[in-house]
Amino acid sequence: MDRLASAPIRLSDAQRIDWLRLIRSEHVGPRTFRSLVNHCGSARAALERLPDLARRGGASGAGRICSIENAEREIEASHRLGVALLAPGEHGYPPRLALIDDPPPLLGVRGAHETEMRPMIGIVGSRNASGVGLKFTQGIARDLADAGFVIASGLARGIDQAAHRASLDGGTVAVLAGGHDRIYPPEHEGLLASVIDTGGGAISEMPLGHSPRARDFPRRNRLISGVALGILIVEAAHRSGSLITGRFANEQGREVFAVPGSPLDPRAAGTNDLIRQGATLTTCAADIINAVAPIMGRPIELPMEEDEPPHEGREPQETDRARIVGLLGPSPLGIDDLVRMAGTSPAIVRTVLLELEMAGRLERHGGGMVSLN
Amino acid sequence: MDRLASAPIRLSDAQRIDWLRLIRSEHVGPRTFRSLVNHCGSARAALERLPDLARRGGASGAGRICSIENAEREIEASHRLGVALLAPGEHGYPPRLALIDDPPPLLGVRGAHETEMRPMIGIVGSRNASGVGLKFTQGIARDLADAGFVIASGLARGIDQAAHRASLDGGTVAVLAGGHDRIYPPEHEGLLASVIDTGGGAISEMPLGHSPRARDFPRRNRLISGVALGILIVEAAHRSGSLITGRFANEQGREVFAVPGSPLDPRAAGTNDLIRQGATLTTCAADIINAVAPIMGRPIELPMEEDEPPHEGREPQETDRARIVGLLGPSPLGIDDLVRMAGTSPAIVRTVLLELEMAGRLERHGGGMVSLN
Repeated sequence: MDRLASAPIRLSDAQRIDWLRLIRSEHVGPRTFRSLVNHCGSARAALERLPDLARRGGASGAGRICSIENAEREIEASHRLGVALLAPGEHGYPPRLALIDDPPPLLGVRGAHETEMRPMIGIVGSRNASGVGLKFTQGIARDLADAGFVIASGLARGIDQAAHRASLDGGTVAVLAGGHDRIYPPEHEGLLASVIDTGGGAISEMPLGHSPRARDFPRRNRLISGVALGILIVEAAHRSGSLITGRFANEQGREVFAVPGSPLDPRAAGTNDLIRQGATLTTCAADIINAVAPIMGRPIELPMEEDEPPHEGREPQETDRARIVGLLGPSPLGIDDLVRMAGTSPAIVRTVLLELEMAGRLERHGGGMVSLN
Repeated sequence: MDRLASAPIRLSDAQRIDWLRLIRSEHVGPRTFRSLVNHCGSARAALERLPDLARRGGASGAGRICSIENAEREIEASHRLGVALLAPGEHGYPPRLALIDDPPPLLGVRGAHETEMRPMIGIVGSRNASGVGLKFTQGIARDLADAGFVIASGLARGIDQAAHRASLDGGTVAVLAGGHDRIYPPEHEGLLASVIDTGGGAISEMPLGHSPRARDFPRRNRLISGVALGILIVEAAHRSGSLITGRFANEQGREVFAVPGSPLDPRAAGTNDLIRQGATLTTCAADIINAVAPIMGRPIELPMEEDEPPHEGREPQETDRARIVGLLGPSPLGIDDLVRMAGTSPAIVRTVLLELEMAGRLERHGGGMVSLN
């Protein structure tokens, strides 16, 4: 089991409703959620400030705020599906996922919570996999499960489903791009039932009723690498979704493993590139087990979210806002650079960015970059 | 063209006969040749000292010394086959080969001498190659030839012949394990003729009439890597001859390139291992060209062989010999360690080793290691 450095936390029912309302409100993603809670001191305080922040950011009307009733309804409907909405640090929230830059503030977790707490390895690859790729996946997924690892994957056709099926006995976790009631592809509902029945689990950050769109898959991929110690990419063409997962894994400080293949096989082009860029060439489970063994020993320190003292200090003036908006454009700019160029305090810049965000005028990117919409 | 730092040298006819006699004498290999010339000052002086050295080393009779007549006969017969016997630094002797630990003192060079002076890339791999491996080899050999590289290979079945055939237009060099009149495999005599006819070449360090034995192939492999800037291994099982070539290349400071393959393909097991150990993962000619470009710019400094002042100082005493023989055994021991343990001068140790070698009692290994026979 992945070891937490501190005791697991537990949200109160009222906190859970506040958190769900905040993350389900318009213009609030995982990064903004964290900024708002840090800025305002709690999710409830943030909910109260949202209209004011949006107005200052230049919005004509306030963004849609999730009501208490809608939040309660989602929690109940989730409960009926066997899905718990868990916060980082709660039992059942994959411990390593809490450490990424943008962890879901509430994660829908279905199935055995014990399984989510165990060390995981992600396995992903082509939907259009070769016979050799499928056979290799089955073998290595089984060997990793036998060694005590939970296999995380995306329930997709091809490599993903082969990884899940081969590791059912050891517990496997399906990471969904849509809501728990919108399984994609639909023909894998039976596979998901097997995953749950054999003590595995499924996780999603999306609300019930959300059918996955194309842009939800890259977003989901950060969770596959986020829950895991490392991620194995079995077959991947140039510019494929599996490579995006590999990139997330790198940014998240996760180990990246890749299976080599013939230069004449387009399904190996991506994995060969990854090896060239430093991924560990992987031909058997021992390659992975040996690489992650030293990491597994370290206990996991969770960053705290709630109950930090709210930001104190002067409020931004109209001149601050004008200067910061003037410096921003459609190309992503680092917040550090922005602070230096604006010649004002980091706190002022962060507040203005939150205002712009709540007004729907700002987009956040990875690596502390922002751009105007 | 690979650039020599100094003007090419040229042996006199008499020197060439002396050199050939010495390297064709019993118990004299490339390493011993160099030690003898350094010790005695010239090949002719070494020939005169051989019987005395062998006697001091404990031989009952002197080893066979190649006669002037036999040497002249080999030079003439070689000439009739279009083969020149060239020393390191002479025009036609591949410049980089002169830099290895144990270059052939005389190399039989057939074909265009200009070709031997150009930058080379070695390509080797399974005799039992896959269709995909052969196709890849053809493509990359052609691309490297188009980029101005001469392809060196071993004229074997499988990958080797594919590499030669695809690079005929650019000049290709066959590195032989037997004498120039003992082509192996015999069905590749036609291919060799094409190599020569298209301006390529063939090289061998073996005497005419020498049919290659199993142990000659690893010895030959050091020449394939030795002539080249780097060596590409296309397909190789565990413990295959191509991996030996890769190991030589590493020891010689040559770049090692390897083609990845599926973990389920046994012909990729060796190349995947090489990549794991640091070889450059290679899927196209640019991977090789980019890696060797910085090396090509450096001029080649040739070590001098002849006309160094002979070793001066006291001769070894019987007690020196006894102590050194006592320290040696069937397991290889480093000469540096031997000098330290023997508590005598490096010159004395080197002389005793030469004596033992001329008596057929010593074997030299790579990395300055020696053992008793």
